Amino acid sequence: MNSEGALLKRIRQAVLSAGEKGAGPVRLGVGDDAAILVPRRGRELVISSDFLLEGVHFTSSHSSDAIGYKALARGVSDLAAMGAAPLGFLLNLAMPSRRTGAWLEGFLKGLDRAARSFRIRLIGGDLAQNGQVAICIVVIGDTMTGRSIPRSGAKPGDLIFVSGTLGAARLGLEIMLQRQNRRRDATPLLTQHLYPQPRLELGSWLASHRAASAMMDISDGLSIDLARLCEASRVGAVAYEDRIPAVSIPESWRARLGLSRRANLEFALHGGDDYELLFTVPKRYAGILNRWRGDVPVTCIGEIRKSRGISLVTSAGERALQPQGWDHFKSPER
Amino acid sequence: MNSEGALLKRIRQAVLSAGEKGAGPVRLGVGDDAAILVPRRGRELVISSDFLLEGVHFTSSHSSDAIGYKALARGVSDLAAMGAAPLGFLLNLAMPSRRTGAWLEGFLKGLDRAARSFRIRLIGGDLAQNGQVAICIVVIGDTMTGRSIPRSGAKPGDLIFVSGTLGAARLGLEIMLQRQNRRRDATPLLTQHLYPQPRLELGSWLASHRAASAMMDISDGLSIDLARLCEASRVGAVAYEDRIPAVSIPESWRARLGLSRRANLEFALHGGDDYELLFTVPKRYAGILNRWRGDVPVTCIGEIRKSRGISLVTSAGERALQPQGWDHFKSPER
Repeated sequence: MNSEGALLKRIRQAVLSAGEKGAGPVRLGVGDDAAILVPRRGRELVISSDFLLEGVHFTSSHSSDAIGYKALARGVSDLAAMGAAPLGFLLNLAMPSRRTGAWLEGFLKGLDRAARSFRIRLIGGDLAQNGQVAICIVVIGDTMTGRSIPRSGAKPGDLIFVSGTLGAARLGLEIMLQRQNRRRDATPLLTQHLYPQPRLELGSWLASHRAASAMMDISDGLSIDLARLCEASRVGAVAYEDRIPAVSIPESWRARLGLSRRANLEFALHGGDDYELLFTVPKRYAGILNRWRGDVPVTCIGEIRKSRGISLVTSAGERALQPQGWDHFKSPER
Repeated sequence: MNSEGALLKRIRQAVLSAGEKGAGPVRLGVGDDAAILVPRRGRELVISSDFLLEGVHFTSSHSSDAIGYKALARGVSDLAAMGAAPLGFLLNLAMPSRRTGAWLEGFLKGLDRAARSFRIRLIGGDLAQNGQVAICIVVIGDTMTGRSIPRSGAKPGDLIFVSGTLGAARLGLEIMLQRQNRRRDATPLLTQHLYPQPRLELGSWLASHRAASAMMDISDGLSIDLARLCEASRVGAVAYEDRIPAVSIPESWRARLGLSRRANLEFALHGGDDYELLFTVPKRYAGILNRWRGDVPVTCIGEIRKSRGISLVTSAGERALQPQGWDHFKSPER
């Protein structure tokens, strides 16, 4: 029998959960009308939510394990982008009955692995039957009061940094779209698309060192997300093309996928789903980044300016960088 | 142009919002990677989320105004069921481009009216383009620390109460399903289905008077929700049929809809979407309910028992009450 209660029980058993009674700041977990949270003294709560929708954010060629992992990783990346530490999450899951077997099992496995990896526990949510899979994940984390890093604090003269490599998720998507993902040598190139790594350690390091003036995660692409950070901060920016840590595309894959010589840079500028951190640091604090010894490199790619608009400096000179990343309501209807 | 940014701006302008900088316990509102909440001293946070899906929770015959209102009302009802006061909500909204005109306008109007009525402000969320409308609302409220009312506190001997009238929402749904909703005399019978009223005042009164031992809202039907409350509390219950405040169905409507004489009772026992409160009160405190002077009547319908299972006492004697309310994964696939 697949009653809602039985499904709920399966989910609770399969996924790292705070239990009914909760733990730490979670005073009441799954199974009630709502979860209860009491932040520890001197901490503030950070909360965010995201959709992951079949046919929009993933297709039938994505394994349910990757979908479960990524659903939570995307949310946790929003916590990283505030400098917060994860506390709990709510899983809202709608799906057809035929997906309650192997598909759900894979989904919960990926979700559980992500929960353990990011140390975040299931504390509630909602189940519904639906023609297509729709997932909405709510994440809750905390920081020391006043230490969260918003998008809006960048000032003219601040240096602009990104973590990791940009465009790798877009390369993975291209491999999926061209149905080359079953080749064995595709596996390492798919990792950032299928199993992105939220930059929790870097985010909380920046928050605790009060190093960053503004921060967000790159979910829709550097060009559009840098424009959003600048809009929130009422500033502009200049970025240097040769400093952008773009994914390197092996020559054999470049040929196989029919990509141009500039594809890696285009992917880095406009590809979404990287979940790297984009942050600004006042020049006088920039030295502190030399003390960063964490899991991911950080690269200075440019500088905040007073005049609005984003410029890109290339070998051919300076030009306006148009936001071309992922915008849900600009793309043609799918 | 319908870019995501332009849509976000429309939503912020149309719906009561905490603004970018927030207000009160909301330290950061819409427009960042996450919202920030700092509970007032001595308060705990309560958080819940729910789907509202096209073709599942509503159909194309529902006005977008009613959908917007109800999306928030359902979530706020979960806060009422904990005894909490509303603070803020996140709107996750996926829809086709063709719905961004009049449909969205109506939706935001209903949502805004609900937000003002329940004094809850938009603090964040997510937008996506999708073939069908999918809504996931996250609500956050607070109570005095330790005063939230869970489902799990009912003890043998406690009296069982419900607020308001049960089955009225199910009657409204029947009128919609039989396409009688355009008749002028249908309007008052549709109110509880289209515009349910979360029982915030009663919920917080019960919490502040420490009167209730367990509480939840009746979202899926009395028979299934009473069974859930009893399961969480590891107890059973007996309810008296003649005490259940069932909707009264006008004779003309009973005939028009082809309903049996017992339809009002069936609707009250098994109809969903009422969003009335179901709560238990230790006998020695029951007198306190005489001091309730609020917006909705409360009725004692039975008593908690030690032995598991739910019994219904009728004029023909006592029988087991089978849970027949709304279960997403028991109903045939739609």
